Amino acid sequence: MTTSTIPSLTSSDPDYLLQSATLGDVASLAGDMDIFWLLFGAILVFFMQTGFAMLEVGSVSIKNTKNILIKNIGDASLGAICWWLFGYGVALGDTKGRFIGSNAFALKGSHFEADDGTLTNGYSYAMWLFQWAFAATAATIVSGAVAERVSFNAYIIYSVILTSFIYPVVVHWGWGGGWASAWVDEDLLFDCGVIDFAGSGVVHMTGGLAALAAAIVVGPRTGRFNEDGTANTLPQQSAVLQTLGTLILWFGWYGFNGVSTLAINGLAGVAAKTMVTTTISAAFGAVTTVLLGKLNLGYWDAGAANNGLLAGLVGVTAGCSTCEPEGAMVIGIISGFVYTYSSKMLVMLKIDDVVDAIPVHCFCGAWGVFAASLFATKDNYSAAYYGDRVDKCAGAFYGGDGNAVAANVVFILAVIAWVSATCMALFLGINAVVGMRVDKEMEQIGMDDSKHGGQTYPEMVKGATVA
Amino acid sequence: MTTSTIPSLTSSDPDYLLQSATLGDVASLAGDMDIFWLLFGAILVFFMQTGFAMLEVGSVSIKNTKNILIKNIGDASLGAICWWLFGYGVALGDTKGRFIGSNAFALKGSHFEADDGTLTNGYSYAMWLFQWAFAATAATIVSGAVAERVSFNAYIIYSVILTSFIYPVVVHWGWGGGWASAWVDEDLLFDCGVIDFAGSGVVHMTGGLAALAAAIVVGPRTGRFNEDGTANTLPQQSAVLQTLGTLILWFGWYGFNGVSTLAINGLAGVAAKTMVTTTISAAFGAVTTVLLGKLNLGYWDAGAANNGLLAGLVGVTAGCSTCEPEGAMVIGIISGFVYTYSSKMLVMLKIDDVVDAIPVHCFCGAWGVFAASLFATKDNYSAAYYGDRVDKCAGAFYGGDGNAVAANVVFILAVIAWVSATCMALFLGINAVVGMRVDKEMEQIGMDDSKHGGQTYPEMVKGATVA
Amino acid sequence: MTTSTIPSLTSSDPDYLLQSATLGDVASLAGDMDIFWLLFGAILVFFMQTGFAMLEVGSVSIKNTKNILIKNIGDASLGAICWWLFGYGVALGDTKGRFIGSNAFALKGSHFEADDGTLTNGYSYAMWLFQWAFAATAATIVSGAVAERVSFNAYIIYSVILTSFIYPVVVHWGWGGGWASAWVDEDLLFDCGVIDFAGSGVVHMTGGLAALAAAIVVGPRTGRFNEDGTANTLPQQSAVLQTLGTLILWFGWYGFNGVSTLAINGLAGVAAKTMVTTTISAAFGAVTTVLLGKLNLGYWDAGAANNGLLAGLVGVTAGCSTCEPEGAMVIGIISGFVYTYSSKMLVMLKIDDVVDAIPVHCFCGAWGVFAASLFATKDNYSAAYYGDRVDKCAGAFYGGDGNAVAANVVFILAVIAWVSATCMALFLGINAVVGMRVDKEMEQIGMDDSKHGGQTYPEMVKGATVA
Repeated sequence: MTTSTIPSLTSSDPDYLLQSATLGDVASLAGDMDIFWLLFGAILVFFMQTGFAMLEVGSVSIKNTKNILIKNIGDASLGAICWWLFGYGVALGDTKGRFIGSNAFALKGSHFEADDGTLTNGYSYAMWLFQWAFAATAATIVSGAVAERVSFNAYIIYSVILTSFIYPVVVHWGWGGGWASAWVDEDLLFDCGVIDFAGSGVVHMTGGLAALAAAIVVGPRTGRFNEDGTANTLPQQSAVLQTLGTLILWFGWYGFNGVSTLAINGLAGVAAKTMVTTTISAAFGAVTTVLLGKLNLGYWDAGAANNGLLAGLVGVTAGCSTCEPEGAMVIGIISGFVYTYSSKMLVMLKIDDVVDAIPVHCFCGAWGVFAASLFATKDNYSAAYYGDRVDKCAGAFYGGDGNAVAANVVFILAVIAWVSATCMALFLGINAVVGMRVDKEMEQIGMDDSKHGGQTYPEMVKGATVA
Repeated sequence: MTTSTIPSLTSSDPDYLLQSATLGDVASLAGDMDIFWLLFGAILVFFMQTGFAMLEVGSVSIKNTKNILIKNIGDASLGAICWWLFGYGVALGDTKGRFIGSNAFALKGSHFEADDGTLTNGYSYAMWLFQWAFAATAATIVSGAVAERVSFNAYIIYSVILTSFIYPVVVHWGWGGGWASAWVDEDLLFDCGVIDFAGSGVVHMTGGLAALAAAIVVGPRTGRFNEDGTANTLPQQSAVLQTLGTLILWFGWYGFNGVSTLAINGLAGVAAKTMVTTTISAAFGAVTTVLLGKLNLGYWDAGAANNGLLAGLVGVTAGCSTCEPEGAMVIGIISGFVYTYSSKMLVMLKIDDVVDAIPVHCFCGAWGVFAASLFATKDNYSAAYYGDRVDKCAGAFYGGDGNAVAANVVFILAVIAWVSATCMALFLGINAVVGMRVDKEMEQIGMDDSKHGGQTYPEMVKGATVA
Repeated sequence: MTTSTIPSLTSSDPDYLLQSATLGDVASLAGDMDIFWLLFGAILVFFMQTGFAMLEVGSVSIKNTKNILIKNIGDASLGAICWWLFGYGVALGDTKGRFIGSNAFALKGSHFEADDGTLTNGYSYAMWLFQWAFAATAATIVSGAVAERVSFNAYIIYSVILTSFIYPVVVHWGWGGGWASAWVDEDLLFDCGVIDFAGSGVVHMTGGLAALAAAIVVGPRTGRFNEDGTANTLPQQSAVLQTLGTLILWFGWYGFNGVSTLAINGLAGVAAKTMVTTTISAAFGAVTTVLLGKLNLGYWDAGAANNGLLAGLVGVTAGCSTCEPEGAMVIGIISGFVYTYSSKMLVMLKIDDVVDAIPVHCFCGAWGVFAASLFATKDNYSAAYYGDRVDKCAGAFYGGDGNAVAANVVFILAVIAWVSATCMALFLGINAVVGMRVDKEMEQIGMDDSKHGGQTYPEMVKGATVA
């Protein structure tokens, strides 16, 4: 554990307090403040689980309420167990061939051992917590997309594999010293490494691609698509819960993006600016999507406001620390377009995504990674990354040499390849062995009745019962 | 961006750490901690948007659910865009004649430029975020009052004007170096400037007065008042959502009041005491209002508990850092009375306010500003404001010369004059050009059906359908 | 109030900043950071009130919605008033015979007076807020258990006594320098004092035991138990609200456990590790309880996930700072068993507990205190408590002498004796004088109609009305 030479609050001996302070005294305090910062962020990002739970439960039919709730509790709980035993080590353990981490499993090993004088220990525990909250985010994205027809056994299996292995490998590549990581000193991808500050790619594209693979394998809900190619809107139980969830996600996103500085000492200005660009992109994402919705649908769509906000948030997550507010505006506006039209495309392809998780997380995530390589200014890149790389690695629109574009495009392609391949194998395997999908009768009755002990809202008369 | 001379966490070279620290090292850390503090507060205050959304949606009929939800998303999103382009500059830019700020628009200019050695830059971004969350609060107060009959186009126009101009001017007056600001060195209003620490006047009265003007212009909901002068209680969809919203607001209010110290270094004690007085006023506001409700209505009213809490919170917001706990008790109790009887008065005047926003924010806000000039103790005023002004500027009940009362009363009157005049002009103008109100049929059917793509809760049978 | 010698952010005079810093400069900053930390925790723990409110309202019938909501507002509001006038002083005032605190009432006295140079003042205000949030937690546990039939007058009386006297005495014993406190220098219980870091015993057992006494005295809801000894599941209005509440509680618990270090300077590593063990126990509690539910009930029970999470959280609260992750795993798993089977036992004993508060808080709380004395490692105990006591006071499974087991068992027994005796006297007294229970007709109609101005959800058709 950390120890401090700083006098405790009860030590008011003036002679002692007038002694000279060393850099070590200040560094000890700075180290504790950085841990506080990281814990603050971890808690905020963890609260996004509540946001996802409310958004997802608001988007399903009443008959599948308990089913989606228990899955959300599971994403965080099972996720914690998997992250503890495997995930953290794969993601952030010492690298093996720059492909995968190879130690720090089960909170054991040098990462978590007290090392007098450096404070590494406490910081690693805080990092475990922060990164666990991110892993739970990736896992929960899938649950929303395939809700209302995926089997509970399938859910458990893919949750475990996703948080133990598939997602942590991407973290290792992008942030943990892997081949695409910018946080190493040499052998950088295109001399830069990927700019994916808080994970438009690492987290959102990964979760969104897994959701896409799952939605393809499990197939659409019964009644979602007609023979003639048109789609039906299936009942979503509550716009209030959707909006509650969205607002909670926005709240938590300040931890997701802002606290991804991973320290506050010397980086507070970066964190503040990051939260500002996050806000501006979210705002323009929402406004753009609502306007597109008005054009396309003819009315002011509350769902478009919610998903537009999330699109803007996902889009700016990679470049939040390196773009200017104007860049964030453009990122947010384009995120609104990406969301709106990728959502339409999925419907045309008869891919059924209950909460529009794939447009929001996969497509806007990919756009976000690409955008980060365009909009990074030299000053911001220097502050958030490394000053000595800035000529090569700044954004293509702000005087960079284009290396960032190359690195980010390669990273996007690699994540697509890795997640698609492993997830298609995973979901097809599950489908073959235990079945991805509940049977038709169970789907029609709803999973609460058949698998979770009875319907929700026993006191309310449901339309289905009366009509 | 800020840079720091403090050794990084990985620097464990003992020789280095044993070197003497300078005041600059400590100041750099203190500056980062202040930014952390302000970001912490900004995020908490932003979460109040979720609270307002839940409170408002719980207070409207089911048929206007999506309508109020999208407005709440809009208050934060549109508000961010307006605050970015105009609002912050008007509020906190360099003063022009002590009436209005004149630079720092669009996050540009000297406020946001790196100035080596002072850390101003990162701090200004954090301040932008913190103040944006306050602006969104002022805007959303209006939405609640005029819900269920105001047109969507009218809503968009007044939201933009309010967060771009009308509200920021009040901020400039009260906090940003304007004629009433206490945070300047000379030419103070009555040698003191206004005591409105976290904005009972700047935020709540402004929002509440705008709501009052809007409610007068738009008129009451159809069916709210009878020919004989009596009032009908229109359906409010959920007491649960109202209480959820209220509790979220209470949570966020600790950021609103406590973090209005704007720094933690040297002001942590003020922040802590501020959160304590905030708690005590809220508690007495709730208890008083519930007891008054029991007297007046004959039952224990959950709505009274919610609005009484909010009344106590609004009432203490101006004086939270300068009153003692006993003062907070009195402020809270009187807030309960002010809320209860101003609410009754509005009903008598046939002004229809869906969420009782006007009694809570306008009347308790005015009371709060006045109270701050009565209950400020000398010690607290010295700690939160300036020690050398304390004889003149302490509260009238605690040995002050009465200058604070004069300054605060003038500020109240000026805010009433400014907001009433500009808002009446605004709302009458909107009414003349695009119409403030939806047509009668749309009001009866509900706005979800006519403007937002269909009713909420498709699976629930509504009483209206059956009865 | 605190004052600081650290240059303000606007002081950029290089000569000044290059001067040597003293330990006093650093200590002043560290003191402010500790206050920030404690306020951060207080706000998180306060938000648990929202969690309890949602969990409880989701667990009652629609007909008692407003009744439980107003009680939750009351637990925080009335609790604040009682904590202000009496509770804090009883809990944390200077000790009288190591049984009860005897000063610091009404935020008066030496604890809250400015004492130049030590910063005690601001810190005490922050501590008041933090501990108030804990007291409100203890009070609200009772409301959930006896919902739907306890009278409103009875609720007010027991809330006041509980937060003014019964709960604060336990705080004094365990944390405030009382006979079982580990935070004193001499005359320690079994040379150690109790290991109850964040209050499995002090808070949860106390709240749970009070709930047990109340449930026994008030008796089961009408219709809960049949003549033949079997039990009926009474309607619970919403699994969504239950899960929302549970997730909010999990979020707030990071403040409850992690911030119970009461300082961040020098203790950041302990705080980080505490949040990690908290997560792991919660996760295993949930998974264990869901699996037991599947075995016992035959389906995947969302309620089991929620209560299992809470069981794991309560169980680890005493030992969170001293156990290893493996210990947290075992604690969580056993908490799942303790919850599941104590819940069954209560049903067999025909004790009716609407939200299963007694199994979660009382039984898992007792298990948690006992577990803390088993699983405390020497390193962790040294970091979180005192290095010089570690041989005697470490956990029995990790080389301790067994003194911790003795101290913790004595503390468990003493809390059982104190709370059972005082609460049985309290509830029997209330029952004799004003009646604990509403009359049968009111219970059947529901309390909203009879006591709170009408039913909730006026627009929804309830099943009860139709069927």
